[in-house]
Amino acid sequence: MNEAAISRYPVPQLETLPDDIRDRILAVQEKAHFIPNVFLTLAHRPAEFRAFFSYHDAIMEREGSTLTPAEKEMIIVATSAVNGCQYCVIAHGALLRVFAKEPLLADQIAINYLHAPINERQKAMLAFALKLSRTPESIEESDYDRLKQLGYDDEDILDITGITAFFGLSNRMAIVTGMQANAEFYTMAREPRG
Amino acid sequence: MNEAAISRYPVPQLETLPDDIRDRILAVQEKAHFIPNVFLTLAHRPAEFRAFFSYHDAIMEREGSTLTPAEKEMIIVATSAVNGCQYCVIAHGALLRVFAKEPLLADQIAINYLHAPINERQKAMLAFALKLSRTPESIEESDYDRLKQLGYDDEDILDITGITAFFGLSNRMAIVTGMQANAEFYTMAREPRG
Amino acid sequence: MNEAAISRYPVPQLETLPDDIRDRILAVQEKAHFIPNVFLTLAHRPAEFRAFFSYHDAIMEREGSTLTPAEKEMIIVATSAVNGCQYCVIAHGALLRVFAKEPLLADQIAINYLHAPINERQKAMLAFALKLSRTPESIEESDYDRLKQLGYDDEDILDITGITAFFGLSNRMAIVTGMQANAEFYTMAREPRG
Amino acid sequence: MNEAAISRYPVPQLETLPDDIRDRILAVQEKAHFIPNVFLTLAHRPAEFRAFFSYHDAIMEREGSTLTPAEKEMIIVATSAVNGCQYCVIAHGALLRVFAKEPLLADQIAINYLHAPINERQKAMLAFALKLSRTPESIEESDYDRLKQLGYDDEDILDITGITAFFGLSNRMAIVTGMQANAEFYTMAREPRG
Amino acid sequence: MNEAAISRYPVPQLETLPDDIRDRILAVQEKAHFIPNVFLTLAHRPAEFRAFFSYHDAIMEREGSTLTPAEKEMIIVATSAVNGCQYCVIAHGALLRVFAKEPLLADQIAINYLHAPINERQKAMLAFALKLSRTPESIEESDYDRLKQLGYDDEDILDITGITAFFGLSNRMAIVTGMQANAEFYTMAREPRG
Amino acid sequence: MNEAAISRYPVPQLETLPDDIRDRILAVQEKAHFIPNVFLTLAHRPAEFRAFFSYHDAIMEREGSTLTPAEKEMIIVATSAVNGCQYCVIAHGALLRVFAKEPLLADQIAINYLHAPINERQKAMLAFALKLSRTPESIEESDYDRLKQLGYDDEDILDITGITAFFGLSNRMAIVTGMQANAEFYTMAREPRG
Repeated sequence: MNEAAISRYPVPQLETLPDDIRDRILAVQEKAHFIPNVFLTLAHRPAEFRAFFSYHDAIMEREGSTLTPAEKEMIIVATSAVNGCQYCVIAHGALLRVFAKEPLLADQIAINYLHAPINERQKAMLAFALKLSRTPESIEESDYDRLKQLGYDDEDILDITGITAFFGLSNRMAIVTGMQANAEFYTMAREPRG
Repeated sequence: MNEAAISRYPVPQLETLPDDIRDRILAVQEKAHFIPNVFLTLAHRPAEFRAFFSYHDAIMEREGSTLTPAEKEMIIVATSAVNGCQYCVIAHGALLRVFAKEPLLADQIAINYLHAPINERQKAMLAFALKLSRTPESIEESDYDRLKQLGYDDEDILDITGITAFFGLSNRMAIVTGMQANAEFYTMAREPRG
Repeated sequence: MNEAAISRYPVPQLETLPDDIRDRILAVQEKAHFIPNVFLTLAHRPAEFRAFFSYHDAIMEREGSTLTPAEKEMIIVATSAVNGCQYCVIAHGALLRVFAKEPLLADQIAINYLHAPINERQKAMLAFALKLSRTPESIEESDYDRLKQLGYDDEDILDITGITAFFGLSNRMAIVTGMQANAEFYTMAREPRG
Repeated sequence: MNEAAISRYPVPQLETLPDDIRDRILAVQEKAHFIPNVFLTLAHRPAEFRAFFSYHDAIMEREGSTLTPAEKEMIIVATSAVNGCQYCVIAHGALLRVFAKEPLLADQIAINYLHAPINERQKAMLAFALKLSRTPESIEESDYDRLKQLGYDDEDILDITGITAFFGLSNRMAIVTGMQANAEFYTMAREPRG
Repeated sequence: MNEAAISRYPVPQLETLPDDIRDRILAVQEKAHFIPNVFLTLAHRPAEFRAFFSYHDAIMEREGSTLTPAEKEMIIVATSAVNGCQYCVIAHGALLRVFAKEPLLADQIAINYLHAPINERQKAMLAFALKLSRTPESIEESDYDRLKQLGYDDEDILDITGITAFFGLSNRMAIVTGMQANAEFYTMAREPRG
Repeated sequence: MNEAAISRYPVPQLETLPDDIRDRILAVQEKAHFIPNVFLTLAHRPAEFRAFFSYHDAIMEREGSTLTPAEKEMIIVATSAVNGCQYCVIAHGALLRVFAKEPLLADQIAINYLHAPINERQKAMLAFALKLSRTPESIEESDYDRLKQLGYDDEDILDITGITAFFGLSNRMAIVTGMQANAEFYTMAREPRG
């Protein structure tokens, strides 16, 4: 596969990129041993690249969030699946396997979270995320009530909302750019924890 | 109306905000003579505030975009209306009236763009934006083809996508926070240009 | 805008109309200081004009109805908005502002009644009207129960039904004829009550 | 079956009705040898009864319409079926069998007009009627074009619209009132023409 | 109507069929006095014919099922109607009339089971069947709970599922082959029981 | 995981099963080195087990079919994904990887076939299968035409239909029984062909 095939849009060469963007990409590469295509693809527009990853970090790395890393990935996988976004389901499915240490969970949630082995709170969280993702116009008071009955507070609801909203943006960018998921993601963390 | 009523979440006092955020808000206030509630509401979480407005500017102020300011607002109004987002329809409806200098156009597009007095290219642009907004999983080759037949190129399509995607995020944040549109927006630019 | 532009169909001259129709139109003009386009547009077919306005009056002016004028307009605005009818949302949005003496309410309901500042009974009334309007096949016993729990009786339910059904008809006539809302409606009663 | 069972609402005794309403009902009874329940049910509200049947006649008996009586009934049966209205499908299914002299056609259209033995023009007419009935917001220029290519003119389109719109109203009234179809309609004209 | 018209696919002559298939068809003909077209149509592919009717019998004739024959037909009629399958609605509507000894019930259920004179348990059974038929992805724990509250046990739920699933298959085969319902089915058992 | 966990229903012990069923299961085990749970789960009802696998074989092993084994699995994966059936997506995703010798293809098709690296004919095949699966009532003449333009003949269309219809049945049985996919399927054939 040549580089062009990872996007319908031009993919810049690393050496042509602004320093801050190239540095961020090289840091990811060092940690992951490959460059996830979302970095190379979005680098086509540096200003949007910077805003995208700032937003990503603000949402995903908020201090004080009570959502676990695995729960955040569950939201991303479930909403990206109904939105039909290959990149996000494959890449964040891999991260869900990594964080949850459950090799089957990502596929189960991508196909149908109602039949996944997660708890009642997590199912309610995903029900809210999916409703917000697909029919935001239908969110109503009882949706907050349901989450609060299960112990989520206002800040938790805002975390769920932020992740759902940001990855809804991400899904649409990945779909229209034809962003391809790296082959590495498909097989990552598929073995049971030893 | 007290300040708390503009959001379900705490609205910070201006003087308690980080300097960069307060400065941005004061600059907007100076220009608009009021503070749009999106600024006060999102300031509840400074990191997300910064990312949100960086993304907004990257998308809406990209140099070289061939979309006119009015066309960008058409996309926002049409997609926010189907997503049921009061804040975005009201605030960007006002901006659409300002930019298009057509006092009826924003309401017409919010209700049904198919019956609005816009041209064929603009209708195709909105058809793409609405499809991407509501059923991103259904975007296919023929959708690009239709836009290209009407003279849109790949970068135009990416602009339409970015606006649709970013305001889809914005819609979901505004809906869940219960963000109220300022009364000023409802009446802005409703008189015909003299 | 010339007269032809208010409809895809021929718009008759007032002096060519049957006396009863012309009289009705002139009476409206005297009261409103302009002729709402629905009168001129539907006059293209006199028999249907007469039946339309007889039905309108039977539904909207029924003695003994406990629905307030503003509540009737809420139903019209909410259902016409999801049906994508510009004429009905704009014209009845104006009437809602007039009757409710709330300059923001019509736009709020047109965009998303779930986030409008109306009471629980009114929200239930609109939920029923919207369900009946969009998926009449799904009306079931529990829908009556919900309304009755909130104090609506059988005749109230029939009033809600009649308004929803009649303006569903009206929406479809306005959409297919391409009926344009008069500019006067867009700005009517937008100022707060003094 | 007692009379009360034909509606969730009170059914007035014939002798208590205003003369014009009783006369209309008796005239129908003389012709049909039974009283279709729509007359008894709607007589609960005389003003709406009068407007309903005036509208019905204006739409269904318009001089100069090029739609055949069977085609008008096809529209009613197809749209009432998707709206889930037992009364209208059963009663107008009977009329369709009478007018079309085809004993199987009404059931075929009620279940799925795409597989009914009707011609291409009639299928296009029903496609338009169903789109207008279910998603009026989606009617666009190409819908008119399709009908015009098949020889329908503007007045034909207005006839199709009027029937669709009026029976959409009728469906909602019949559903909410729980209007029961007379047993006579179920078996009427089921034998092939001799 | 010539034989070819009952299917878009070749309809084999009885004498050319394998013995077991011909014998099954002749046995049906002896009992019913006509050959339901599903037998002739599916005989085009003998292996699928055998599997189809084996499955049919396993589902519909399971010993120990607590569903009555009429209830099984209710499921078939209701789900086939929403799937738009003329053959199944017409043929199994006839069987429903035969088994329920209620000449109006099949049409009532085909059009809208919510308004049919069946009991609460039967409505819940059909609600489950329709949900499973149309949106199988949405089946969740509360759907089982609802049925169990009304006295259905696990084996009943599996019976409802099997019938829904098998006739969903049957609907799709009948639709794509253009299978025509025999005229006999339309009028069968339409007279009230004497 | 204990055996009970693979189904909501009792899972029979192999030694208690009728000989023909046990023999079929042992034959599968010998070939696959594990017993796919669909065999153990459906053995709960022997008559339905036999009919299910007879139908499966009639559809999937029809001599003369021009669909490749990989294409048949594409249909199963794509339709099972929209139906939310974990068992079928996971198990047939594995078979698709085996037959297509493309380790990424199954996930790509499960998430969104429009973005999978398959040819135009295969996309049209899947478009037809998905339409038939989700809205069988909407199949119309132009759907056959599209497939025929791409070289599919009537028997190919019947093959696509049979697979779609049978696995629609299978999806519903797997969903209601809570059938769990064997862990083996998740990792099968994920390495690129050497």
